[in-house]
Amino acid sequence: MREVAILGIGQTKFGELWDRSFREIGIEAGFSALQEAKLSSQNLGALYLGNMASGSFIEQEHIAPLILDYAGLAGHHLPAVRVEAGGASGAVAFHQAYLAVASGAHDIVVVGGAEKMTDVPESVQTDITNASADQEWETVFGATLPSLWALVARRHMHDHGTRREEFAQFPVLAHEMGSKNPLAHFRNKITLSQVLEGSPVAEPLGVMDCAPASDGAAAIVLGPLEQARKYTDTPIRISASQLACDTLALQHRRDVTTLDATVVAAKAAFHAAKRTPKDVQVAEVHDAYSISGLMALEDLGFFAKGAAGKALVNGEVGLGTKLGLNTSGGLKAQGQPFGAVGVAQIAEIVRQLRGEAKDRQVAGAQVGLAHNMGGTGATSVVHLLERVN
Amino acid sequence: MREVAILGIGQTKFGELWDRSFREIGIEAGFSALQEAKLSSQNLGALYLGNMASGSFIEQEHIAPLILDYAGLAGHHLPAVRVEAGGASGAVAFHQAYLAVASGAHDIVVVGGAEKMTDVPESVQTDITNASADQEWETVFGATLPSLWALVARRHMHDHGTRREEFAQFPVLAHEMGSKNPLAHFRNKITLSQVLEGSPVAEPLGVMDCAPASDGAAAIVLGPLEQARKYTDTPIRISASQLACDTLALQHRRDVTTLDATVVAAKAAFHAAKRTPKDVQVAEVHDAYSISGLMALEDLGFFAKGAAGKALVNGEVGLGTKLGLNTSGGLKAQGQPFGAVGVAQIAEIVRQLRGEAKDRQVAGAQVGLAHNMGGTGATSVVHLLERVN
Repeated sequence: MREVAILGIGQTKFGELWDRSFREIGIEAGFSALQEAKLSSQNLGALYLGNMASGSFIEQEHIAPLILDYAGLAGHHLPAVRVEAGGASGAVAFHQAYLAVASGAHDIVVVGGAEKMTDVPESVQTDITNASADQEWETVFGATLPSLWALVARRHMHDHGTRREEFAQFPVLAHEMGSKNPLAHFRNKITLSQVLEGSPVAEPLGVMDCAPASDGAAAIVLGPLEQARKYTDTPIRISASQLACDTLALQHRRDVTTLDATVVAAKAAFHAAKRTPKDVQVAEVHDAYSISGLMALEDLGFFAKGAAGKALVNGEVGLGTKLGLNTSGGLKAQGQPFGAVGVAQIAEIVRQLRGEAKDRQVAGAQVGLAHNMGGTGATSVVHLLERVN
Repeated sequence: MREVAILGIGQTKFGELWDRSFREIGIEAGFSALQEAKLSSQNLGALYLGNMASGSFIEQEHIAPLILDYAGLAGHHLPAVRVEAGGASGAVAFHQAYLAVASGAHDIVVVGGAEKMTDVPESVQTDITNASADQEWETVFGATLPSLWALVARRHMHDHGTRREEFAQFPVLAHEMGSKNPLAHFRNKITLSQVLEGSPVAEPLGVMDCAPASDGAAAIVLGPLEQARKYTDTPIRISASQLACDTLALQHRRDVTTLDATVVAAKAAFHAAKRTPKDVQVAEVHDAYSISGLMALEDLGFFAKGAAGKALVNGEVGLGTKLGLNTSGGLKAQGQPFGAVGVAQIAEIVRQLRGEAKDRQVAGAQVGLAHNMGGTGATSVVHLLERVN
């Protein structure tokens, strides 16, 4: 398989975009990415689209040809494929787009991620997103995604001595970075005590431990690395794209305090890229919940099990340390439009590796990692990206 | 890219399977396919799953890892990807699985298609399947899939002189074949007058012109052609896998009486396989509606525009002619579990090319075609399969 590069990125603002439709945000992101790569529609080979639940949110399935249509590209009769993997839909779509280029099936491929969540009431948002957990063994009994992650947090505290104050640090870091990102859903800074005193959602998790439901879209143009300089002065090489799965239901897991699928995907990615976690200067990890962000730091190999909490408290991660972390604001502050998250994470890593991240720039970033999950980690996707010098 | 072969097939009965859950039918089909290819889970590289609307039908998204989990395979942490393209979800998933093997990304891949539709009331089934048409320009105004296909039928009659009695012949043929298929939803034969006198759904289409909503699943194991003899004595070569898209909304089409995406996918498939329509002895075409089946015969290149109706009336297609057609019973009689259809069509072509189709066998079939569509043709997928002698 040939090497693949990122040629252009695009992204809408994330937030409660009540005045804009799914198709509008989808094509805005797509056009921005094409424009960056100075591409016209004539060059395109295929479209992949990550989305979790458009059928439930906006009564519209079959959305990949829909976005092609509204982008004015239907006349080319390109292949357009929608991929779904809960909150990991975006990164899984990116993985498929990567394979399409790597295999030689297509040269130029656009991958989008989009979700329109806030046009339905919040209780309905909860029901819809719960569908990424196991309906027969979890949600039918009243479990929700936050309550499942709360169980995980309690067990992590019990088994590994993790303290409430440790994972509470994650949203503080996320909002600090979100305050610097003009596309972020939340741009306010928050304090540790605001997290600790937030209204309980599912104890030990409070409202500030949980990423919001957002509207938003992101898009990326991929092409063969050997042709990349035709389209951009700053191609970013995809040095690994790995996907692994686990049981949907927590109760079937070997150990709920380790995200096995993340461990497997990360090991495979580092192996494929001939890199180690120490080589990574900037990472976007899946902080849908403060505890999931903390666990990602451990299971991706940045810290030993039980050590990520101390690292967060001691300021060992974040801007100005060895590991720039969730500089976009992460899911917590940049926002969480489910199907868009995985694509937006990669877009942020691209900005960092290009040196375009302005006041949230990680100095000299050469290698970046993006980590996206669905459900309580049943789908995990790890991408490694590198600056081409 | 390397050549890809089909190593095993599996399929559940199609119908109203009220005593069985989505996950049960999904794993039944998958296990049958693995068993046929004498494969254990150790050999597997990835799972692809086609499904249109599990979120709306059974409140469960994120179903690719779910099926892995219930198949007892979660411990291998394989990649599992769900693909959605309305009624073409199955064939699009197959296309992705084909690319995964052809590219060398994986050796052995299982692709499943599954839908559980009949646990919700019929009016809800209609609402859910309507989501494969354009919500903002079609369904919000009350249009349904049958009413959109009825508009197409009227225009086809007007532009090409097609008569009601011509497309009414399609369901007669489908039920004739369904009567011979033990897995079919409907096994009763019907007459032309039963079709013509059926209760109107959206004139000129009556109830017998419209395929049912069904529950069901199908699965296929793919692998590299060069390794195929290790797994089966009768490998079937995939000589083309082509996907093309068009506008979701009918009103944006160049001409509603031609399925442009089908034309494009078919031409590309015949070109890739170095075949012509004359080389095909057996085809499964997307007869979700009698008129869509008729149009497929034209747009795939078997008949000139306006000529398929006469061919149907004159008995130029079907068992014992030059073109065995929808020997499974097609969507009309075998049934229409949306996400399973495209995979089941390919499974039937495999039975035919292996010579295992019993009393519906097309004598000496060497080359087969499967044609699957989503919505009113916005996604079209054409596969060409060949017997390896």
